[in-house]
Amino acid sequence: MKNLLVAQSGGPSSAINATLAGVCQYALTNENVGRIYGAKHGIVGVLEKDLVEIGETLKSHDNLERLVHTPASALGSCRFKLKNPLEDPAQYKQIFETFKEFNIGYFVYIGGNDSMDTVHKLSEYARENNYEDIFIMGAPKTIDNDLMGMCHSPGYASAAKYIAQTVAEIWQDMKVYSMKQVIILEIMGRHTGWLTASASYATKSYDIPSLIYLPEVHFNDEKFIADVNKKLENSNAVLVCVSEGVMYENGVFVSESAENSETDAFGHKKLTGTAKSLENIVKNKIGCKTRAIEFSLIQRCAAHLASSIDLSESKLLGMISAQKAIEGVSGMVPVLNRISNNPYKVEYSCVKSNTIAGNEKFFPKNWINAEGNGVTNDFIEYVRPLIGGDKDEKAGTFLGQSKFLDLF
Amino acid sequence: MKNLLVAQSGGPSSAINATLAGVCQYALTNENVGRIYGAKHGIVGVLEKDLVEIGETLKSHDNLERLVHTPASALGSCRFKLKNPLEDPAQYKQIFETFKEFNIGYFVYIGGNDSMDTVHKLSEYARENNYEDIFIMGAPKTIDNDLMGMCHSPGYASAAKYIAQTVAEIWQDMKVYSMKQVIILEIMGRHTGWLTASASYATKSYDIPSLIYLPEVHFNDEKFIADVNKKLENSNAVLVCVSEGVMYENGVFVSESAENSETDAFGHKKLTGTAKSLENIVKNKIGCKTRAIEFSLIQRCAAHLASSIDLSESKLLGMISAQKAIEGVSGMVPVLNRISNNPYKVEYSCVKSNTIAGNEKFFPKNWINAEGNGVTNDFIEYVRPLIGGDKDEKAGTFLGQSKFLDLF
Repeated sequence: MKNLLVAQSGGPSSAINATLAGVCQYALTNENVGRIYGAKHGIVGVLEKDLVEIGETLKSHDNLERLVHTPASALGSCRFKLKNPLEDPAQYKQIFETFKEFNIGYFVYIGGNDSMDTVHKLSEYARENNYEDIFIMGAPKTIDNDLMGMCHSPGYASAAKYIAQTVAEIWQDMKVYSMKQVIILEIMGRHTGWLTASASYATKSYDIPSLIYLPEVHFNDEKFIADVNKKLENSNAVLVCVSEGVMYENGVFVSESAENSETDAFGHKKLTGTAKSLENIVKNKIGCKTRAIEFSLIQRCAAHLASSIDLSESKLLGMISAQKAIEGVSGMVPVLNRISNNPYKVEYSCVKSNTIAGNEKFFPKNWINAEGNGVTNDFIEYVRPLIGGDKDEKAGTFLGQSKFLDLF
Repeated sequence: MKNLLVAQSGGPSSAINATLAGVCQYALTNENVGRIYGAKHGIVGVLEKDLVEIGETLKSHDNLERLVHTPASALGSCRFKLKNPLEDPAQYKQIFETFKEFNIGYFVYIGGNDSMDTVHKLSEYARENNYEDIFIMGAPKTIDNDLMGMCHSPGYASAAKYIAQTVAEIWQDMKVYSMKQVIILEIMGRHTGWLTASASYATKSYDIPSLIYLPEVHFNDEKFIADVNKKLENSNAVLVCVSEGVMYENGVFVSESAENSETDAFGHKKLTGTAKSLENIVKNKIGCKTRAIEFSLIQRCAAHLASSIDLSESKLLGMISAQKAIEGVSGMVPVLNRISNNPYKVEYSCVKSNTIAGNEKFFPKNWINAEGNGVTNDFIEYVRPLIGGDKDEKAGTFLGQSKFLDLF
């Protein structure tokens, strides 16, 4: 009887532990699996033989449920890119030595783009070197929603829900004063605008005077100033939602531009945040009250606002990943495909790990408005079931049964 | 029959609309009250006769419940300090003209320190000028928890709960990598450390290697560097929670110190955030990975994490305030006094508005540890019932039934 090894990699999310719980729950009920190990800090733990037995802990239903609702990566994470086997065969030998020493027959690696590259390389290496008793599966995860081959990626919906809810709350807060002001929210997404776009679920619900800038559209300072001024004509409060990764046509990130930069006390040029750069522009060119707010790490670990659909889908993908490995499948990743938005229906299939590795799924151009400063209702239809479908919302969440009340 | 006027002032909170709901619910059921008006943007709306009739809207139970759970100030807010009557009698004449024109017999002003100053001045003016048919009451509110004469202020518990929950989540996130890193959280509180202290509810629950700096203790850069280095000896991840208002012994805010300041592209000296200043210190003097995170506006408007005890207490104080005004009381403010922590019991009384006006309640020195970088368990006992007592917590909140799960 073989043991199962599972590890997590890449940036944390509110749902990656649900996937881990799914892997373990399936493995625990399968008679072909012996022990269940977790590698600490992703593939680094496999390389360093830093494994921990987790099956006993997760036999408890209470612990398994706690794991589902625990944000970030309970097994730790890493950012480690495996070299090619020809370039560095020692790494591969080390990894397969760990597999042998711990009698691992099934390895599930939960992560994003880079982690699926690891799954691809390891499964190819196993095939080429005739390791016939080890099956390696991926399980997808990223808040960025930029993985190819699936309709949405596990972890995205929870981050999107946090963003939409918080945007609605900040709007309530910013409109209490009567002076002109611009608030600029910086949202994660280095190359793709999926997360920033999710703000639109709130801006459209509350008709918030807002501008949404995604990395898929080149940023232009003059256009930005004109956009803000136009909104300020009809409203005292204007909300700007901007992806951290917006860049100018010349390929320079807004956060890196010399004009927006700052120097510290030692005279070193400092990279300012993207929102902070736009705050400087509003201050200097428009002159009204302005404030930059970064959602920072909070958007990817706000477990208390996790989407229940996200958690259950993430868990199911973990179960399928374990099931496939145990059935002898290797180099594949289970994914979600959407059948319909309303009623919300998805089906599961498997794609090759190299479909995902090294690719990025951009926000569709035809879901961006003509002005390049907002998104269309097609996106709202896409995102609504992921973040607005929770039946169990508490009062105080605008995504729940009732919206916030306006008195004037 | 006289009408009732209500207004809100000062910084938003997640509970100030619950107080507004309480005022209106009481007034709606009292046969001595005619219409219910709200003044837009606090006392400014009273000066400018900018009132809106809100009683009809709030006769609906559903609307009233939505109002309780809506963050910020549904009637808008202002930061406006009324001058002395001798200095500017015109302001007072204008206000009492509004009262007369709208047949106001009862005015409830919901707000903090400055708003209670307004309540005091207006009720004194009414008394001295023999306005015998207008009764003016205050209702307390501030997330800062620095109002005198009460055990805690409405709005504090909700902000404190947001902070504690988010600190627990950020800790899950920051400990996934194995390199040394310091995360610095900037929490509101210009003069008092009550909000920053609430982070300790999470740091103690999870035994987080952490440092907590309040404005009640003079900040010292060398001591800070030594504190962080000491924590880094035993842990890769160290969490620093700092009040925005910490200052050096010479009275300069950490955020204002020349050494930590930055200049923008135009060469202007810029005030950096407090956390950003400490981030610069860690970068330059310790050299490990570091990141500043500001909770910014989010901590005061996160309705989805509002404390249910806070909402119900806030609403009750609003009801009492309306009741007292209708009974002919003026210049007073209903407050909460704690009878016991466990079981949690409070009683209500009324204090004079000038008990609160112009005063600040500091964090008790004997609840700060000897090192000046943390708080004692006395504070935990004080804060627990306010933020940890919700029976209806969803999964995913560490304040609920179960804590996040650690696998190693």
